[in-house]
Amino acid sequence: MDAAENRSTQSRPRSAMAQPAVDPSGQHRLVDLIVAGGIVVTMDPQRRVIGEGAVAIQAGRIVAVGPRGEVEAAYIGTERIDAAGRALIPGLINGHAHLPMTLFRGLADDEDLDDWLQHTIFPAEAMNVDEAFVRSGTRLGLAELIRGGVTTVCDMYYFEHAVAEELAAAGLRGLLGQVLIDFPSPDCADHTAAMAAIERFVSHWQGHPLITPAIAPHAPYTVGDGHLIEARAFADQHRCPFVIHLAETRHELEESLRLKGARPVEHLAALGVLGERMVAAHVVWAELHELDLLRDHGVGVVHNPQSNMKLASGVAPLPAMLTRDLAVGLGTDGSASNNDLSLWEEIDTAAKLHKLITADPKVVSAQEAFELATIRGARALHLEGAIGSLEVGKRADLVVIDLEAINQIPLSSIYSALVYATKASDVRTVLVEGRVLLRDRQLLTLDEPAIEAEALAYRHRIIERLGIGHSATGS
Amino acid sequence: MDAAENRSTQSRPRSAMAQPAVDPSGQHRLVDLIVAGGIVVTMDPQRRVIGEGAVAIQAGRIVAVGPRGEVEAAYIGTERIDAAGRALIPGLINGHAHLPMTLFRGLADDEDLDDWLQHTIFPAEAMNVDEAFVRSGTRLGLAELIRGGVTTVCDMYYFEHAVAEELAAAGLRGLLGQVLIDFPSPDCADHTAAMAAIERFVSHWQGHPLITPAIAPHAPYTVGDGHLIEARAFADQHRCPFVIHLAETRHELEESLRLKGARPVEHLAALGVLGERMVAAHVVWAELHELDLLRDHGVGVVHNPQSNMKLASGVAPLPAMLTRDLAVGLGTDGSASNNDLSLWEEIDTAAKLHKLITADPKVVSAQEAFELATIRGARALHLEGAIGSLEVGKRADLVVIDLEAINQIPLSSIYSALVYATKASDVRTVLVEGRVLLRDRQLLTLDEPAIEAEALAYRHRIIERLGIGHSATGS
Repeated sequence: MDAAENRSTQSRPRSAMAQPAVDPSGQHRLVDLIVAGGIVVTMDPQRRVIGEGAVAIQAGRIVAVGPRGEVEAAYIGTERIDAAGRALIPGLINGHAHLPMTLFRGLADDEDLDDWLQHTIFPAEAMNVDEAFVRSGTRLGLAELIRGGVTTVCDMYYFEHAVAEELAAAGLRGLLGQVLIDFPSPDCADHTAAMAAIERFVSHWQGHPLITPAIAPHAPYTVGDGHLIEARAFADQHRCPFVIHLAETRHELEESLRLKGARPVEHLAALGVLGERMVAAHVVWAELHELDLLRDHGVGVVHNPQSNMKLASGVAPLPAMLTRDLAVGLGTDGSASNNDLSLWEEIDTAAKLHKLITADPKVVSAQEAFELATIRGARALHLEGAIGSLEVGKRADLVVIDLEAINQIPLSSIYSALVYATKASDVRTVLVEGRVLLRDRQLLTLDEPAIEAEALAYRHRIIERLGIGHSATGS
Repeated sequence: MDAAENRSTQSRPRSAMAQPAVDPSGQHRLVDLIVAGGIVVTMDPQRRVIGEGAVAIQAGRIVAVGPRGEVEAAYIGTERIDAAGRALIPGLINGHAHLPMTLFRGLADDEDLDDWLQHTIFPAEAMNVDEAFVRSGTRLGLAELIRGGVTTVCDMYYFEHAVAEELAAAGLRGLLGQVLIDFPSPDCADHTAAMAAIERFVSHWQGHPLITPAIAPHAPYTVGDGHLIEARAFADQHRCPFVIHLAETRHELEESLRLKGARPVEHLAALGVLGERMVAAHVVWAELHELDLLRDHGVGVVHNPQSNMKLASGVAPLPAMLTRDLAVGLGTDGSASNNDLSLWEEIDTAAKLHKLITADPKVVSAQEAFELATIRGARALHLEGAIGSLEVGKRADLVVIDLEAINQIPLSSIYSALVYATKASDVRTVLVEGRVLLRDRQLLTLDEPAIEAEALAYRHRIIERLGIGHSATGS
């Protein structure tokens, strides 16, 4: 305990510190909320880990983070969350998702990506995706994200304004991209309509405390060069992010070489599209000089290890990205290609996969893997000034993790426990912008039974329309 | 409903079928237990999936499995477990573990396997492993296995008689190997003592309904040729399994070529050690002709994808094993190299990893991945006559899985749901030999708080003795 705490508590028994109380000395500052008592993993520049720490929150921001004694000596919370014996971490950042596709979970497994897109996903989307579908799928995805300790998601899909409304209502933070694609989409008949929708979307949401709106050209192979250049100009003009799938498959690489005479990243560089507003998902098929291009242009990259494995897309050169200090985060991708939204499994897989691929078990340490899901993921979304670590002044996005599940005992290094032994099921409490979205495993802002019932109703309709005779029993 | 059910139920309302009741017609056979109402995934030779099924159990064995109506028309249970809306699957088989090492969870991550063994694990074992340690670590591992839906584990370690006693007490099934290794081990000073301990162990446990005792030479690089031949003779004489680590690392391969002029599998073949009692863990560094050798000799193989990734050991040629119809299962390996005992993650990883490695997303389908953890895993342990599927006459090892977690909705093909979306946390109820070990997520045969307290006490001692200054906070 420091001097300040001694002054205010010297005549009180120690246990009194555990309860919010009126401060007799008048030296405490009243704040909205204190989360106190656990191992605080700050992910700040010094990577401080505080054995028994606390975080004080006021008006959605962190006003103090430090040893519990110090924080509780200076602040008193209107509300208090006890994290004793638990871990307190920055909220996880899922850097690439298509939330409405949660309704397509497991719709078509074990297929080629191109077959899968052309024969299942695109038809399923054409037949099913409308605004109500998007809202329902988004809520389903949000429930899973919150239960899994994700506090920020980067999403790209159609009807993204509906995604934004659902996120804002549920209280999750999002970098949300309205898709631009060179064929008629479920929400826009042509390019002019698409650009108008994007303009409305971005103008409407800019300045919202939770939502960062973006333009999201689907990929270099589905959006022509002129439209990519137009999108970049739009992003510059509106000062909004530019989200894209980039260099995901070997097929994309080969077609880019055949049709454009350049690799995908090289091609975007030549077009003048790369820039510090860009968030590029996947970046599997990139050579070292292309990683240099991405870094030099300030592009954020999102690695999706499980999706890339399941669709046999390849392995992104993560160790080389880290060597270059690229801004790289982790994503789950959509539930049709993963098939869940657990970022914990992406963290664990990222740590293990690159050890295997490089034949070096020292590559991507537990701490580095955890950075991908927090501070480095924030950099990848160009949001590191607001999120990604527990630091004074940042938004109060934080998660309380139980450390008493049988799979976590005995506890060793906290990074090892978080990366190799913690599951989505160990997430206890989740706050975004200081608001509690999950408390003791109860969702506070979403009606889970209603979400589940809606999802089942949609699934029946999807199966029926596709006529694929898929049944729940697999028979 | 079949004729028998019609006879007994025609005048009763349908809902009466849901309750065990005295049979007015006297045509029901009374059994110990009926588990009824869920999607039954039999893994039988026809891979039947029953949309609403039931399993009847008597004296630890399955006496009926089929549509719920048929089973409930013929049988009535003294006890009944409602699995409506859930999945009912054969208990999972963890084909390779070192349960006492659960106490070493996260002790040393992100290191070379050889460094890790020589500088952390072997010293930690020499300083800590005694019979009490083995019992404590085993109970910790058992709690995690049961919570994760594993009903059979193949373990190899020191003091394996203590492991066996703990398994028998907790009610789990095990193929357990007492280790043979060419240096002084925590329980045996020399080879003579080791062989005597193995002889006592095997003789004592043979014939036990849950425990299959085995001899477990650690690996070809830690057990000399003469002792490997002696172990094979022992296995033949005692008709017991022979468990070994085989062809795990490139280093092992290179040393085998250098010292013996043959690859590890070739070398064991030349020694005459391969045979149908053998269970070989890993088999990463094996060429196609070696897979033929393993198949032709009836060797069971256990694939450990996450351990092989984390230790950068390499990728076992699983697709080629499946093409050859090798008996291959899945294992977690010990918690010091994984770091958990979730077989669900191994199933998911096996399905995804080999798609990536072969660049073919159709490789290792969800159904094939689930087979590895059930019927094929049973073959790998040479126990397919007793376990691995829900079939009449087999032991009643089965697991009820919740299908209502947010990560599982909407449900698609049951194999997709089980492989790509189900977690250890979705396991609700576990039976082995007809005995309920976990009921509605409550462990019935283990004292979890006591296990956790013991584990923490051991961890403090391990850290202190190693003098590695490891702390729970990672600082």
